[in-house]
Amino acid sequence: MKSDVLKQQAHQRIQQHLGYAFSRIELLQQALTHRSFNAKHNERFEFVGDAILNYTIAKMLFDAFPKLTEGELSRLRANLVNEGVLAEIALEMNVGDGLYLGTGELKSGGFRRPSILADAMEAMFAAVSFDADFATAEKVVRHLFASRVKSVDFKNQGKDNKTTLQEALQARRLALPKYRIEEQIGTANDSRFVISCDLGELGFICKAQGTSRKTAEQEAAAEALKWLEQTFPIKRKK
Amino acid sequence: MKSDVLKQQAHQRIQQHLGYAFSRIELLQQALTHRSFNAKHNERFEFVGDAILNYTIAKMLFDAFPKLTEGELSRLRANLVNEGVLAEIALEMNVGDGLYLGTGELKSGGFRRPSILADAMEAMFAAVSFDADFATAEKVVRHLFASRVKSVDFKNQGKDNKTTLQEALQARRLALPKYRIEEQIGTANDSRFVISCDLGELGFICKAQGTSRKTAEQEAAAEALKWLEQTFPIKRKK
Repeated sequence: MKSDVLKQQAHQRIQQHLGYAFSRIELLQQALTHRSFNAKHNERFEFVGDAILNYTIAKMLFDAFPKLTEGELSRLRANLVNEGVLAEIALEMNVGDGLYLGTGELKSGGFRRPSILADAMEAMFAAVSFDADFATAEKVVRHLFASRVKSVDFKNQGKDNKTTLQEALQARRLALPKYRIEEQIGTANDSRFVISCDLGELGFICKAQGTSRKTAEQEAAAEALKWLEQTFPIKRKK
Repeated sequence: MKSDVLKQQAHQRIQQHLGYAFSRIELLQQALTHRSFNAKHNERFEFVGDAILNYTIAKMLFDAFPKLTEGELSRLRANLVNEGVLAEIALEMNVGDGLYLGTGELKSGGFRRPSILADAMEAMFAAVSFDADFATAEKVVRHLFASRVKSVDFKNQGKDNKTTLQEALQARRLALPKYRIEEQIGTANDSRFVISCDLGELGFICKAQGTSRKTAEQEAAAEALKWLEQTFPIKRKK
């Protein structure tokens, strides 16, 4: 069938982008199978692939940014490991052409839906680890994310938590937070700032660390924001 | 110093429990150092160790339960990978005796605080991977979790979401949910149930899959519960 040949060609190109050739091509096929297509789909693969991706990016960031705190590394990872970035990579690799989708998903353009593409990417990382081993899957992830990790600009990444916190407080007609430097730890080469964020009348104060005053403030704002949203939720519309 | 000898003995015993002997003992020491002790603490290690743990348990469950869906696997993992279980293992290994804590934490019993113990466990998994490699760290995790993964009883694990949902609806004086079988997918050997959970007057319906009607209902209830709690939050006290 013509469509089979086209799929095979697409799978060929995908393997070139991955930098990995499958011995058991059925593993790649299952990684590219959406649950709308048949019962042997990619959701269980995705469970494992997500963990491979999370570890690999964690290790890449750990090595690349020796001075960042755990919170800063987590934030960076969240900026790299998400549906948007995965779908972007999938589009670059034309993963959509290789997908197996049910009729409904096909008609509604499922081959370019970010969630479907991102899930297929994660499932492929698992498929590589099943076909070869974990280290090979790690290599594939490193290959695909190398330039993104390199160009990740910590200062401009992530949501600006201070702004978000300020807006959240204003929406609740509450006073603005106060940030204070509580401590400066370490030597000149390896210094950390401990910043407190004080919500005043609410009686909430939290502290956070960072390699600069600015990043520590962002961390503290994130924590205060989490508390605020849990303690004073704003009801969403149905 | 006497305390140094005691620490060394504790570290010896911890390595026996891990089934791994460090070449660079300073990596184990850093993994056991709380941030209250000094600037070279275990928080960055924890970031990597958490990912090693998550992958290893994901893979163990994936292999052990070939018929479970992704959602079911995630739930099982959440029951195995959490502060409580990690602290339990840490207590079995007497990790507390090997910790480096600041004076304040020492006085307030930090050596048996679950969060501190759990963080040290994760940090040690990273330390093993730095000292040797990922595969060795994976082996250590497998060794420590083997019996727990084996004895994990899916049916009795996890919160009963249907009960929790029912209670949450009653607390809001809302009608009880209706569950329906929407579809039965696959062959006799590999069948999946698609169940819908209908919150009636609220206008919310969701669907979930499971290998049995019961597990699919639990999944659907979990999703409905998440929606309910976000849409109609009950304010917590300050």
